[in-house]
Amino acid sequence: MKKKDFVVVRYGHRDVRDYRVTSHCALVSRAFGASKMIVCESRDEIAENTIKGVNENWGGNFKVEFIQDWREVVLKLKKSGYKIVHLTMYGMQVQEVEKKLIKLNKIAIIVGSQKVEKEVYELADYNVSVTNQPHSEIAALAVFLDRVQQGKELDKKFLKSKLKIIPQEKGKKVINTKK
Amino acid sequence: MKKKDFVVVRYGHRDVRDYRVTSHCALVSRAFGASKMIVCESRDEIAENTIKGVNENWGGNFKVEFIQDWREVVLKLKKSGYKIVHLTMYGMQVQEVEKKLIKLNKIAIIVGSQKVEKEVYELADYNVSVTNQPHSEIAALAVFLDRVQQGKELDKKFLKSKLKIIPQEKGKKVINTKK
Repeated sequence: MKKKDFVVVRYGHRDVRDYRVTSHCALVSRAFGASKMIVCESRDEIAENTIKGVNENWGGNFKVEFIQDWREVVLKLKKSGYKIVHLTMYGMQVQEVEKKLIKLNKIAIIVGSQKVEKEVYELADYNVSVTNQPHSEIAALAVFLDRVQQGKELDKKFLKSKLKIIPQEKGKKVINTKK
Repeated sequence: MKKKDFVVVRYGHRDVRDYRVTSHCALVSRAFGASKMIVCESRDEIAENTIKGVNENWGGNFKVEFIQDWREVVLKLKKSGYKIVHLTMYGMQVQEVEKKLIKLNKIAIIVGSQKVEKEVYELADYNVSVTNQPHSEIAALAVFLDRVQQGKELDKKFLKSKLKIIPQEKGKKVINTKK
């Protein structure tokens, strides 16, 4: 089976107010098996450092990049064979569209925040909603990644991790593999 | 079939820094079919007003309550027949535990934020992780609610909504039912 690749494109990050949301998006992208998040706005050291620290402790090689021009990013991804999925509450229902998307090997997922330009809807191959209700781009991203991978990402191993959790019924068990 | 009920308990909300996260948790709880969120900390008017506005426009009767003492909340829910699920990266893997949880009719889901007291792990019937990786309580909540309802929440209708989205392949279509 061909290896799948998921890239997350964070559109319209608005400094202060959004820094936690962007950090959450990055952590979710990593935890749910994406290889990279591209943030299309001003450099966000908080999100960057959060991911750096998480990679060091918990492994894997998830990356965060900052490229201002979202159009350039999306067109480049399209050229490299990625299908573009734009998550929006106005889109087609994920439970309908996912049957097609599950078969794709390269998906770039645009996650909006503030008002999204009309062109994003036009450039996207699929505009997809996770519920047609207002909620959270972090939640939509996680549920989308879970459904499009049919839960397989939940068994993902993160290479070169320093820390590793042994799931417990009560309490916490973390082993330090470097000790 | 007996109607299922999901209540979300937000543990340890820390004013300023967390207000957006709490709002996102509330919106996710509502959109993914929970009936109520109980916030175990200081009253948060932003989260409260966000939900009020969303209910008015988008329907349903999701509620947010504020009760300081989380222990009181959890014990009362237990007494009323709710099984307590505590979402934590240290818990048993959701893909394993969900087979049991899918059968339950009343689940209260504890969503932590800052450091969680040991007693939460003890009082919970199930400590459950959505990936054993650090990410976002908002994402964990959404994926948990999606999996435990086997996606049925995605077809939920919200009664008495003023606005209603008609899913589109491109662009937005919202109808105002009160006009």
